[in-house]
Amino acid sequence: MSVEPSLSALPEPGEAFERRLRALLRSDVEFIQLIEDDLIAAGGKRIRPRLALLASRALGGVPHEMELALAVELLHSATLLHDDLVDDAETRRGREAAFRKYGNAVSVLSGDYLLSRVLFLLAETGRIELVHLFAEAARQLAEGEVLQFQAAAYQEYSEAQYYRIIESKTAALMRAATEGAALLGRAPETLRMALVTYGREYGMAFQMRDDYLDLMGASERLGKPVGGDVREGKVTLITLWLLDAEPERVGKVLLRRGREPDDVAFLRELAVRTGVAERVVEVIGERIRRALAALEVLPGSEAKSALEGLALAELERLQ
Amino acid sequence: MSVEPSLSALPEPGEAFERRLRALLRSDVEFIQLIEDDLIAAGGKRIRPRLALLASRALGGVPHEMELALAVELLHSATLLHDDLVDDAETRRGREAAFRKYGNAVSVLSGDYLLSRVLFLLAETGRIELVHLFAEAARQLAEGEVLQFQAAAYQEYSEAQYYRIIESKTAALMRAATEGAALLGRAPETLRMALVTYGREYGMAFQMRDDYLDLMGASERLGKPVGGDVREGKVTLITLWLLDAEPERVGKVLLRRGREPDDVAFLRELAVRTGVAERVVEVIGERIRRALAALEVLPGSEAKSALEGLALAELERLQ
Repeated sequence: MSVEPSLSALPEPGEAFERRLRALLRSDVEFIQLIEDDLIAAGGKRIRPRLALLASRALGGVPHEMELALAVELLHSATLLHDDLVDDAETRRGREAAFRKYGNAVSVLSGDYLLSRVLFLLAETGRIELVHLFAEAARQLAEGEVLQFQAAAYQEYSEAQYYRIIESKTAALMRAATEGAALLGRAPETLRMALVTYGREYGMAFQMRDDYLDLMGASERLGKPVGGDVREGKVTLITLWLLDAEPERVGKVLLRRGREPDDVAFLRELAVRTGVAERVVEVIGERIRRALAALEVLPGSEAKSALEGLALAELERLQ
Repeated sequence: MSVEPSLSALPEPGEAFERRLRALLRSDVEFIQLIEDDLIAAGGKRIRPRLALLASRALGGVPHEMELALAVELLHSATLLHDDLVDDAETRRGREAAFRKYGNAVSVLSGDYLLSRVLFLLAETGRIELVHLFAEAARQLAEGEVLQFQAAAYQEYSEAQYYRIIESKTAALMRAATEGAALLGRAPETLRMALVTYGREYGMAFQMRDDYLDLMGASERLGKPVGGDVREGKVTLITLWLLDAEPERVGKVLLRRGREPDDVAFLRELAVRTGVAERVVEVIGERIRRALAALEVLPGSEAKSALEGLALAELERLQ
């Protein structure tokens, strides 16, 4: 499969988006503002708003596309704040002691502040169907995150469980971004279903690629050491299949959460030697193909090409 | 002021409410279900849904009153889950170790699950204005909770700050319960404003009474030791005024968070001796009078009498 659009050429949500985001996050409560400033400074890839805006434009533009783009980003950001509780002992980005003391509670409540802004944005669209769509995405998001903790706590793993987790915690919101555009544009059913499929399949591929690189990537490109999921007790498709291939040795490594110095290197080597790595790349490629195929019913446009480019870039990242 | 309706005679939201609540909280993710079961078992006074249902009935009944009642209760419950993070070391109601390990994150994400149900309920009403109303209430709720932590961290206290905190963290949602009924019933402006005032003033009085009893109540009626707020570094109206009366001695007690054995007894005695306790009871009475006066424009009904009874019961609790 030839890969044309380079990652850097993909359109950003842009300055209007960033400006609206800053305005939405403004609070005269200093502790909230400190957290939201961090969030804005951290930036992020803005992948969900990009999906929302591209889907909107692929439909020829829809009312309130910006509110949709902001809402998906803020729902994602709130989840990050809620998912990432730190030990009270741990220092958090050099905050002063006064803040650190209440750090976790303040982070969580600042996440709730973001969620109140999501509600506001949904109300601004005037479309109650969008509230329903977000209710379902938010439910899946919460269930997916908790299911991931539960699976790690019980060491209860299966392929079905893995797919349910990534569909809930990642694909559901990406689907809401693209389906939301169809809903706001009152698109015909065929186009709505195309965007549902694209959002879901792209979302699945996105998370599977992320999980794959967590073990198989180069740490300098990841910007963090490889094997993070193994150390957190998260089992992904690649470790599930490695467990099938060599139950005893891999089981031991996963149980001790890759604590021995050569554990991660062993898993990487085994994944290449058994062909498991290649098979995972293949199933990701299959998801990408489904995402691309879904787009075929849409008329040609720059936005459609950019959606294709986004999907292909996931494959590019696997090289 | 004569107090007639006894607390126990006030109507409960009832079995239909509890049944809908259980159905809404059902999740096939076990860790979520564990937390929601706790929440249902804990019960609670259901004060916010009661306000919503009574306001609805005082207007002669409004569409979707049950969805409103459930939404205010779930938004409140989510805040409780988000506000009450425990130390990882601390055991939490005898949970098994597997759960405890992720206890905080799972509690927070289960709170998010509740919020997704709030979104669903709002969507079910079909009224986008209600989404706006809840967006504002949720924003105030988050800001009020964070402001309370911030005030404790900076030891930055004032009467204005106190009133802002209780209006945001308590009165805003109670107001949403009563104003929401007016909105669902498309009540005329005078009745809507009456319910806005009642909800806000009742909410202020409710929190002020709670804060007053935290210091001045009887521990056997409270079900916990008195002086909890002092130990948490929360300054309330009564301690603010005590600080005015005896800056040096009271300042020391508050700074050391009532750690010495006689600190709380000293504050209680001082509050009686200086008349500060009595003055606080008076300002709460003033709020209650405003809440009752607001109701005058509503036609007579059992529900109206029950709203009056709720307000008067706050005064009764102060005796």
